[in-house]
Amino acid sequence: MSQDHLDARRRQILAGARTCFARFGYEGATVRRLEQEIGLSRGAIFHHFRDKDSLFLAVAEDDAATMVETVADNGLVQVMRDLAERAHEPETAGWLGSQLEVSRRLRTDPEFAARWEQRSAAIAEATRMRLERQREAGVLRADRPIEVIQQFLELAYDGLVLHLAMGRDAKDIEPILGLIEEAVRRRS
Amino acid sequence: MSQDHLDARRRQILAGARTCFARFGYEGATVRRLEQEIGLSRGAIFHHFRDKDSLFLAVAEDDAATMVETVADNGLVQVMRDLAERAHEPETAGWLGSQLEVSRRLRTDPEFAARWEQRSAAIAEATRMRLERQREAGVLRADRPIEVIQQFLELAYDGLVLHLAMGRDAKDIEPILGLIEEAVRRRS
Repeated sequence: MSQDHLDARRRQILAGARTCFARFGYEGATVRRLEQEIGLSRGAIFHHFRDKDSLFLAVAEDDAATMVETVADNGLVQVMRDLAERAHEPETAGWLGSQLEVSRRLRTDPEFAARWEQRSAAIAEATRMRLERQREAGVLRADRPIEVIQQFLELAYDGLVLHLAMGRDAKDIEPILGLIEEAVRRRS
Repeated sequence: MSQDHLDARRRQILAGARTCFARFGYEGATVRRLEQEIGLSRGAIFHHFRDKDSLFLAVAEDDAATMVETVADNGLVQVMRDLAERAHEPETAGWLGSQLEVSRRLRTDPEFAARWEQRSAAIAEATRMRLERQREAGVLRADRPIEVIQQFLELAYDGLVLHLAMGRDAKDIEPILGLIEEAVRRRS
């Protein structure tokens, strides 16, 4: 296979895996269901990804890469806005829900937690860099440490993830995002 | 059995069930494990609670009753403070994690979602009443609707639940709670 074919195959696997995790959850996404949703045999799938964990983490890393780009350009609140806009798609809540499902593993399986942590760390780092640029530009409030503002934004993001994963709608989210943005902005 | 005995038995069942759900998660808390943790036979347990769902929801309702009292007296941020203080107890993250586990059921099982919603509605109502009293007292910011402030606080609470359920610590939470309280307070 050429590199182009390999990349296309990888994208096909990740897209199908995401749909499968969203529909059936982490536990419910059996190898058989992954095969059906992806349209490839287990041999072909696990030629590209070591195991189900690696497949799951690769889908999460794909999200993280998109989030890092959005954070760098427009901040973590924009990530929340984008997420809320996709809330009506059934795959959104399902995929977020499958992330909640792994919370037990995150608490009890240090290797899995370390692999997940790389993803969170990339987003945290992008958020911190964006906040530092905003502080230099004088648009960020100056009376609180960067890390407090960063953790405040991450807490709000986590809250939106839980909210959507529990099947609640996000139609009234915009005024709340406005309040969050105002809370971190420099007072004029 | 006298009413006192019935109440004590009910408390014993709920305490054991909470420990069991915290240790093994919702799915992992089998009837056998519930029997062991509670120290009663399945017959005795399900004489008081119809099924595992009812037991799970009763533990959650117990939490909700405590939360409603704290909200009425000191607001939802105090609930977050109390939760963060119990974060080091292994049962805290485990029990929160078992709540994340039911997110799929909340999205797909309307009857279960309706029973869970009663719990959320009681906390939301207590929060709204507290905010209305605070607005009358002139300590709440007056430039945003009560429901926006309420949803902002609920989002932050959900964020803390997810944060702790994922096994992260809460030692640096106080400055973040300070920022949240300031964001809803009337400017002096």
